[in-house]
Amino acid sequence: MIKVGVVGGTGYTGVELLRLLACHPGVELTAITSRGEAGMPVADMFPSLRGRVGLRFVTPQDAALDQCDVVFFATPNGIAMKQAAELVAAGVRVIDLAADFRIRDIAEWQKWYGMEHAAPELVAEAVYGLPEVNREQIRKARVLANPGCYPTAVQLGFLPLIEAGVIDPAHLIADAKSGVSGAGRKAEVHTLFAEAADNFKAYGVSGHRHLPEIRQGLARAAGAEVGLTFVPHLTPMIRGIHATLYGRLTRDVDLQALFEERYANEAFVDVLPAGAHPETRSVRASNICRIAVHRPQGADVVVVLSVIDNLVKGAAGQAVHNMNIMFGLEEALGLDIVPVSP
Amino acid sequence: MIKVGVVGGTGYTGVELLRLLACHPGVELTAITSRGEAGMPVADMFPSLRGRVGLRFVTPQDAALDQCDVVFFATPNGIAMKQAAELVAAGVRVIDLAADFRIRDIAEWQKWYGMEHAAPELVAEAVYGLPEVNREQIRKARVLANPGCYPTAVQLGFLPLIEAGVIDPAHLIADAKSGVSGAGRKAEVHTLFAEAADNFKAYGVSGHRHLPEIRQGLARAAGAEVGLTFVPHLTPMIRGIHATLYGRLTRDVDLQALFEERYANEAFVDVLPAGAHPETRSVRASNICRIAVHRPQGADVVVVLSVIDNLVKGAAGQAVHNMNIMFGLEEALGLDIVPVSP
Amino acid sequence: MIKVGVVGGTGYTGVELLRLLACHPGVELTAITSRGEAGMPVADMFPSLRGRVGLRFVTPQDAALDQCDVVFFATPNGIAMKQAAELVAAGVRVIDLAADFRIRDIAEWQKWYGMEHAAPELVAEAVYGLPEVNREQIRKARVLANPGCYPTAVQLGFLPLIEAGVIDPAHLIADAKSGVSGAGRKAEVHTLFAEAADNFKAYGVSGHRHLPEIRQGLARAAGAEVGLTFVPHLTPMIRGIHATLYGRLTRDVDLQALFEERYANEAFVDVLPAGAHPETRSVRASNICRIAVHRPQGADVVVVLSVIDNLVKGAAGQAVHNMNIMFGLEEALGLDIVPVSP
Amino acid sequence: MIKVGVVGGTGYTGVELLRLLACHPGVELTAITSRGEAGMPVADMFPSLRGRVGLRFVTPQDAALDQCDVVFFATPNGIAMKQAAELVAAGVRVIDLAADFRIRDIAEWQKWYGMEHAAPELVAEAVYGLPEVNREQIRKARVLANPGCYPTAVQLGFLPLIEAGVIDPAHLIADAKSGVSGAGRKAEVHTLFAEAADNFKAYGVSGHRHLPEIRQGLARAAGAEVGLTFVPHLTPMIRGIHATLYGRLTRDVDLQALFEERYANEAFVDVLPAGAHPETRSVRASNICRIAVHRPQGADVVVVLSVIDNLVKGAAGQAVHNMNIMFGLEEALGLDIVPVSP
Repeated sequence: MIKVGVVGGTGYTGVELLRLLACHPGVELTAITSRGEAGMPVADMFPSLRGRVGLRFVTPQDAALDQCDVVFFATPNGIAMKQAAELVAAGVRVIDLAADFRIRDIAEWQKWYGMEHAAPELVAEAVYGLPEVNREQIRKARVLANPGCYPTAVQLGFLPLIEAGVIDPAHLIADAKSGVSGAGRKAEVHTLFAEAADNFKAYGVSGHRHLPEIRQGLARAAGAEVGLTFVPHLTPMIRGIHATLYGRLTRDVDLQALFEERYANEAFVDVLPAGAHPETRSVRASNICRIAVHRPQGADVVVVLSVIDNLVKGAAGQAVHNMNIMFGLEEALGLDIVPVSP
Repeated sequence: MIKVGVVGGTGYTGVELLRLLACHPGVELTAITSRGEAGMPVADMFPSLRGRVGLRFVTPQDAALDQCDVVFFATPNGIAMKQAAELVAAGVRVIDLAADFRIRDIAEWQKWYGMEHAAPELVAEAVYGLPEVNREQIRKARVLANPGCYPTAVQLGFLPLIEAGVIDPAHLIADAKSGVSGAGRKAEVHTLFAEAADNFKAYGVSGHRHLPEIRQGLARAAGAEVGLTFVPHLTPMIRGIHATLYGRLTRDVDLQALFEERYANEAFVDVLPAGAHPETRSVRASNICRIAVHRPQGADVVVVLSVIDNLVKGAAGQAVHNMNIMFGLEEALGLDIVPVSP
Repeated sequence: MIKVGVVGGTGYTGVELLRLLACHPGVELTAITSRGEAGMPVADMFPSLRGRVGLRFVTPQDAALDQCDVVFFATPNGIAMKQAAELVAAGVRVIDLAADFRIRDIAEWQKWYGMEHAAPELVAEAVYGLPEVNREQIRKARVLANPGCYPTAVQLGFLPLIEAGVIDPAHLIADAKSGVSGAGRKAEVHTLFAEAADNFKAYGVSGHRHLPEIRQGLARAAGAEVGLTFVPHLTPMIRGIHATLYGRLTRDVDLQALFEERYANEAFVDVLPAGAHPETRSVRASNICRIAVHRPQGADVVVVLSVIDNLVKGAAGQAVHNMNIMFGLEEALGLDIVPVSP
Repeated sequence: MIKVGVVGGTGYTGVELLRLLACHPGVELTAITSRGEAGMPVADMFPSLRGRVGLRFVTPQDAALDQCDVVFFATPNGIAMKQAAELVAAGVRVIDLAADFRIRDIAEWQKWYGMEHAAPELVAEAVYGLPEVNREQIRKARVLANPGCYPTAVQLGFLPLIEAGVIDPAHLIADAKSGVSGAGRKAEVHTLFAEAADNFKAYGVSGHRHLPEIRQGLARAAGAEVGLTFVPHLTPMIRGIHATLYGRLTRDVDLQALFEERYANEAFVDVLPAGAHPETRSVRASNICRIAVHRPQGADVVVVLSVIDNLVKGAAGQAVHNMNIMFGLEEALGLDIVPVSP
């Protein structure tokens, strides 16, 4: 059994991680830290875990995280970068669900995240945990940067096109829609029910932190800089991301075959039949990304529809997938959840 | 492996049954019938089942249901009563998720369901599948009447009080709230999103079909007729029932202990600590009923709060639980799902 | 034109008051105060008011409230009681949408609201602003206590029965369901979209601040103490309260006629035909209370269904109605809004 | 008073039209037809209209529509084209909220709407009722084609850019999101609450009927064919359209000034300050279109955000606006509704 610690279990990615780990046959959950809630049974804060998670929150000091095989950080940005080095030195592998190790260009990271980076040397060795791209490096990773939710949905949708060189990488558009849980479990006015329900809006059009992460991933696939317009929107649903992606085709290609072949061996990417429209609920609570590709009216514009559950494939599920790869387990272990629909 | 057939797999209880059976380690799903959709892959109708259910809908004639060990009817009322006798004669056990075998008084059934009963003799032998009450009879049942969603939430909340004889059985009030999936997957105006969202209403105040079912169950526990006012309401959520139950206390009693003892050995009933308010999402997608008991301001009125997922403990999950009991499997097999929250 | 000031315009009752006053032909809006947002155009915080409210928030000091004819307090509890005396002394009439002047028993108020009352002498003269009960006193009120949202829906539903003496006042049950805007526009975790959506729960079963207010109103109508069990619930909708009320009939009566006669001359109470089930959306954005009365199966239990928009008839609309009465305007002036449905 | 008839008052655009007309000081509502519901009081079907609309539905034969000054068709496509000629001959002006007169190219219309056009000669004279473009022609229109909901939001967002010739008209992208009421009040499975809530999906990517309508309007403004990719999405909210529009800038321009000048004199188009993100709820229940324009990171891509209430500015409200223009009334008469938010 892999001994697992979780730092910061009081947010949505944290509780989702606990939901998945509570059922995972290969792990033993040994500690869940929370400075603010130390002493409280985890299931008192999250009644959905009653009878499934018997632990109490502990302070980081009491957690003995250095005895774990792996530690997940489900913390705000800027925490993992301060604690990872010590854990790595103790032989503990680190999976960060926040953004601390996602951007290789430290200056770029500091610009978007508004703080100084505390561990640039770990960024250099960290592996970006998109299994469909980096599976081999993930196996050996000591520090794993779990991708953001939007970046997961957008990259998986664009990658087949960019890798095959069939769209103009200079003019990509990603129009993405997220459920409100993507904003986290923080007390804020703009994500109150009475603000976000029966309402729809874009946000961060001038620039969103996931933009450089997506650009980095797509540039790597393209072997060149890419031009990307990324517009995120807030949708009145709890979970789910729907990315609608637009690219200009530079040559004719069998788009359906291109996507099916690219993901033929991927357990968690499902290419839908031609003409399909994936719904976010078709992946609710599961680790699956479903994708459909369209070429409306035969014009030179390709439209990709890509859906994930932002808390699973966009966060906790992908983190568990990465853990499975890192520890040589079957990739889908603990993740064979049938989506909950309706 | 238990060979399982499902009649009527195109409604919400049907697809939920498929979600549960697809993960159940003790069953082999052999046939799913639908007159209207015969030939269509099940996963085409329900993309959430892609990669998990490979069957196509078949006509009842092609289903070879008499080769199954058990057949679930996830059909409208009035179907199972016509087909059960033949299956039972062939040695197949029948679990009806509709109402055909729930009411022992045939005249009463006919009044509420507006049709003639086709198999009164099966009603006589049918077992009412509330495991917390009828576990022993369920083991041997050939025809199992799976309880309704409201009746499950309401009976589990009232039973400890009635069995202990501590409330006046003549004046019970059950104010129940259901998510919209309880109305089924039928094209109707009143359950359209634009009708049911951001809206709340009572319905069926003059009489709802679940009233006689609840009354029958409570009367059996009371050993006498009960007086029950039952008011169901439609709530703008997909899943979940919240029953708020009111009774007049006839003597002092430690209510918390009463409930905890009654359900001490029940895997799927969770009595919350004193003062708690269960949320429907704390049981979402799981087979659990969570209950809290209150005595506001120490007056002589007891208030019980009981929540279930109407599609799981209120339908498909309870049906699988019953199957497990009927076939001597571990009761929780295939049902150890952590609720999905948020 | 009546000169109107609003203290505390940044919450939901505040912005709703502004929506109504912006259209009211008899008023001139002269000042909207907010300590925290002084200087900001009101329409920057509430884009729905762009082009309709040109004012900026001002500090209370800059508001010259003593030049107003009437000042509305759309503030948290405990503010109006400190500022009303000075305004009243200056000849300004005060309408408090919070609870400071609702409870006549100061000790009771202090117990439920957890603070010392700053103006008991104003409580003594304050008028409880339920027009259907207190119209004559409202005309002359200098300090008006605008009723709470639950108390409005519950009292209007029970009053005909209690005034006529046809139910047992010792055992009343009010099972009430509120949209999330009732919790106000405060940054709190439990009212986040991802917490409150697709979820239903009771809260405050052991005691809610609206309980003594309802009890006071019903006791006054009964001419005696009443016994009331009040259970509020949080419903995943923005606006609306649905109160389901239960009483034991003590004698036969034509319930439909009783209700129709009681409210025959009330512009804002609509008694639905026998057998009806009012929906909250049928009053959305309007000042109407719709009521239906049932006697299920002819038993001795009466069930009343009462719906309001918590922000209008349950707050800002009733406040404007009271202002109209206080200033001798046509009662419905500025309030003849057709409900927005769907 | 203008005598108004409504054909087909049982859908969402119908009931919304009645909400607006019930308050309109310049009209007298004389007849509302419904074949299926003739004889039923309108307010029995729509309780929100109780006390505001006293009429009963009548058959078309009994409606004496030829005595009206104007008749609104809130019918499915294909009805108005059969009845308009007779009304026009009788001197009645016709406003069609459906699509019968929107597309000037009859062959194109027949391709997208799948039926033969019954009145091509009326299409030739019909005026497309987007007041911000066609005000002068609208004044004299005998047959008015009220624009579709998506076409309204998309055209108003693109027009300033296209009229000024600052974007490449060959590669326009409109990513549009609609509330579920846009699908109408028809009993269909895919718009049930339990299907559409907590879910997000694109639809009609290969081609949507509003595509030719938008293309026609933009081509007219461009003076040339345009290339448009239009992807509509279904959002779990009742009302609202959010169009996110992308265009390639062909020269530098002060985008904010361009939009502000274009709509300086328009009562129902509100250009937000630079950097803003309009929310659909900021126009809920009102006839306003709010628009913001962005140029992310200073690249050559312009992003326009345009929101309307699909039932008001996208249907009934724009129809009333058109009526006001046609009859020489003040344009905003009956339409000065403050948006309902939250």
